[in-house]
Amino acid sequence: MDELTHINQSGKATMVDVSEKQTTTRTAKAYGKVILGERVFRLVANNNVEKGDVLTTAKIAGISAAKKCSDLIPLCHNIFISKVDVELQLNEKDFSVEIFSFAKTTAQTGIEMEALTATSIAALTIYDMCKGVDKSLVIKDIHLLSKTGGKSGEYSYTGLEKEEE
Amino acid sequence: MDELTHINQSGKATMVDVSEKQTTTRTAKAYGKVILGERVFRLVANNNVEKGDVLTTAKIAGISAAKKCSDLIPLCHNIFISKVDVELQLNEKDFSVEIFSFAKTTAQTGIEMEALTATSIAALTIYDMCKGVDKSLVIKDIHLLSKTGGKSGEYSYTGLEKEEE
Amino acid sequence: MDELTHINQSGKATMVDVSEKQTTTRTAKAYGKVILGERVFRLVANNNVEKGDVLTTAKIAGISAAKKCSDLIPLCHNIFISKVDVELQLNEKDFSVEIFSFAKTTAQTGIEMEALTATSIAALTIYDMCKGVDKSLVIKDIHLLSKTGGKSGEYSYTGLEKEEE
Amino acid sequence: MDELTHINQSGKATMVDVSEKQTTTRTAKAYGKVILGERVFRLVANNNVEKGDVLTTAKIAGISAAKKCSDLIPLCHNIFISKVDVELQLNEKDFSVEIFSFAKTTAQTGIEMEALTATSIAALTIYDMCKGVDKSLVIKDIHLLSKTGGKSGEYSYTGLEKEEE
Amino acid sequence: MDELTHINQSGKATMVDVSEKQTTTRTAKAYGKVILGERVFRLVANNNVEKGDVLTTAKIAGISAAKKCSDLIPLCHNIFISKVDVELQLNEKDFSVEIFSFAKTTAQTGIEMEALTATSIAALTIYDMCKGVDKSLVIKDIHLLSKTGGKSGEYSYTGLEKEEE
Amino acid sequence: MDELTHINQSGKATMVDVSEKQTTTRTAKAYGKVILGERVFRLVANNNVEKGDVLTTAKIAGISAAKKCSDLIPLCHNIFISKVDVELQLNEKDFSVEIFSFAKTTAQTGIEMEALTATSIAALTIYDMCKGVDKSLVIKDIHLLSKTGGKSGEYSYTGLEKEEE
Repeated sequence: MDELTHINQSGKATMVDVSEKQTTTRTAKAYGKVILGERVFRLVANNNVEKGDVLTTAKIAGISAAKKCSDLIPLCHNIFISKVDVELQLNEKDFSVEIFSFAKTTAQTGIEMEALTATSIAALTIYDMCKGVDKSLVIKDIHLLSKTGGKSGEYSYTGLEKEEE
Repeated sequence: MDELTHINQSGKATMVDVSEKQTTTRTAKAYGKVILGERVFRLVANNNVEKGDVLTTAKIAGISAAKKCSDLIPLCHNIFISKVDVELQLNEKDFSVEIFSFAKTTAQTGIEMEALTATSIAALTIYDMCKGVDKSLVIKDIHLLSKTGGKSGEYSYTGLEKEEE
Repeated sequence: MDELTHINQSGKATMVDVSEKQTTTRTAKAYGKVILGERVFRLVANNNVEKGDVLTTAKIAGISAAKKCSDLIPLCHNIFISKVDVELQLNEKDFSVEIFSFAKTTAQTGIEMEALTATSIAALTIYDMCKGVDKSLVIKDIHLLSKTGGKSGEYSYTGLEKEEE
Repeated sequence: MDELTHINQSGKATMVDVSEKQTTTRTAKAYGKVILGERVFRLVANNNVEKGDVLTTAKIAGISAAKKCSDLIPLCHNIFISKVDVELQLNEKDFSVEIFSFAKTTAQTGIEMEALTATSIAALTIYDMCKGVDKSLVIKDIHLLSKTGGKSGEYSYTGLEKEEE
Repeated sequence: MDELTHINQSGKATMVDVSEKQTTTRTAKAYGKVILGERVFRLVANNNVEKGDVLTTAKIAGISAAKKCSDLIPLCHNIFISKVDVELQLNEKDFSVEIFSFAKTTAQTGIEMEALTATSIAALTIYDMCKGVDKSLVIKDIHLLSKTGGKSGEYSYTGLEKEEE
Repeated sequence: MDELTHINQSGKATMVDVSEKQTTTRTAKAYGKVILGERVFRLVANNNVEKGDVLTTAKIAGISAAKKCSDLIPLCHNIFISKVDVELQLNEKDFSVEIFSFAKTTAQTGIEMEALTATSIAALTIYDMCKGVDKSLVIKDIHLLSKTGGKSGEYSYTGLEKEEE
């Protein structure tokens, strides 16, 4: 498959017609992280220890955003979502918050964009709450971890071709 | 400033009260990139040479998303936006699309989140259009490049503290 | 069932996974009322006698809100809605507007929140239109009247346990 | 003032023209409660003791909903919001969650509807999370507690005229 | 002025930067009509005589849509709207519903698109309610009637240049 | 069929209950045009020759709007959309842009409103981008071209009854 599915013969944007595709259960997992730096990391970690609202606010933002996915991405379908989950984990090694999103549907097309949107908006929400302290936070490595279901079947991320060389 | 502005004394989420802040012109620039890998890069570059719709679709998605920012980020204010711009540049060195967003307002609070949201959604839109060819694209390095206006004044990104060491 | 379905083992918010549930026809009826006080009641009643727009505006707002339900309630699913109806009745006894909402779907999860959201937003719309005359209107007794369909089957409101004692 | 401001001479719905009104700081506080019943109350209280997500999820939903107010209420203006806050308190006396919302703006019209909408959607979110255990929860007594600013000046709720007699 | 203001030097879409424009009161009036055909016209006229909901539903849809204008039109600014009004008149001569919309703002840019969007969505709402009887309704002649305020000053529609020749 | 399907016996607005309808593949095509006048036509045509963004921006706006259809039209159902397409063609004869929209679904109700909404919003987007040069553009002749699927079967526009006489 060496053609962009969302572009027609004339190079114009086009929504894929999914009406002939199978209605099957499909899932997607996405990942991303926000590099906080040590100072912000400590504040967020303290808030988390005290079971404050930082991570929960980002989680709720991510879940809500998954449901707005087709309103944000022009050529994305408005599918029914069976489940979205967003988990945030503090990683002291690189002073980051790691974001793991999961989305599931029973539909004629996949749910990758919903999982990636949940991750992206959760990351932006972290940025928003921390920017008063440090504006240099960086959102990194947002990508699909895996997917199941649909004609193309299972997929697991193994790095972008030649990316790591 | 060593407290999270969006968290109150009890660790609970709180929107900042901006009613006493100055109404001034404020701008923000944000950056991000999508690593496409060589195969997808060629397809997108060809589409761009032929002045196809890939980059324009992502640009429009980014501009539209900036206007939805306060609907996506729970503690973000719904400010009037004077201008948003999103530029996408193909970078053959690392087979990426680089995304530069700019946002401007005359308001009581800044416009950083709008610029960052524009970048993030433009990036996701690129992912959406290319995922049929390769699902391993990675969205990287979303951060604020600079801001002007407001009490905290000018800011330019110089890397996250210790990030690069 | 003595656990909150929308909370996981760690007390964190979670959307219920409905992918294994049956796709069946489900309905829900919700109730609520707005206590207008006599003065406002007379104005609304006169408007209604003259077939003015007060009740229709609230009705349309309620129907529209049902379709936004999953955008408002973070852990609510974005289901297809077969039908929504909102009826408003003036009740001279307590100078109130009573609101009866009905929602129906063929889906893997129920439609209670859509009916309750329709009622709530219709009530707020009444408040909005009348607040210029009297700000002391009170929205009361929003609850589910009944539901059908789904694994938990039929439900009819018989009062909250011990509520009336 | 004995005419509905949102209804014109012919009884038709009309948005109030606020272009001649003063731009001043305006605030509003709203109240509402959800009667949970003892069983659900214990579950929510336990979740709260363990600093789980139930009340935070409702709080975030309320804040987000305030920003959607003009999209929900047909004749409501789309004003800039300086601040919204939603607080939820467990009240063991009547096994309820009490919801206190606050909204602030510098605008040509008041912010009552935003505070009331925040309260209503926070209440619906509580209902949503608890309905798996008990569907008979009741949302009660949503009303404006007070307002400041604007031509009509300060207002404090003292009960609806004759309501309690 | 012979350049498209929403297109930059390279032919790319661009939002106009309005930050240097004057904040003034601006108004716009827009017009459109829906040709119903005689059969549908009689049904709508009867409904109107009986003060039914057809025209009110379209009116509310139009007002609500004006507030969503910047979410619908990619390069349109999200301005505060002081007032929107939509009036629908039955015209027996050509069996049409004529739609007159009015919008007003105090902002740095005009309100033409809000008035035109109100008209367009009111027209579509009429279509929606009548399509069960006749699908051949036609929406016609949507245009700006007049505007006031802003640097370009007053404008009144006098027909498109050469349009009528 | 001589009754308005969206109006009940009392003349009140009502959403059609589609729960008993067949889930079938349904399509709709809609048409509309924007009369640009010669001056604007030349600018848009030049932009198109240079493969600028004017028509693509309108196309993306149209596709996005189709997905918001049920949020815009009060009595319209929120159906899953399998495909939307919007094509814009410059017509030098009357200095217009002609807009052809196509929408497809597998659902219990038809997709006419989505196609018509895509056309209408694409037309408004053209207006928005050109209004700086000439405010007298007119949007004309928005109507359904054809539909397939559903109980009422195929439909092709042949003009409104008596419209052309």
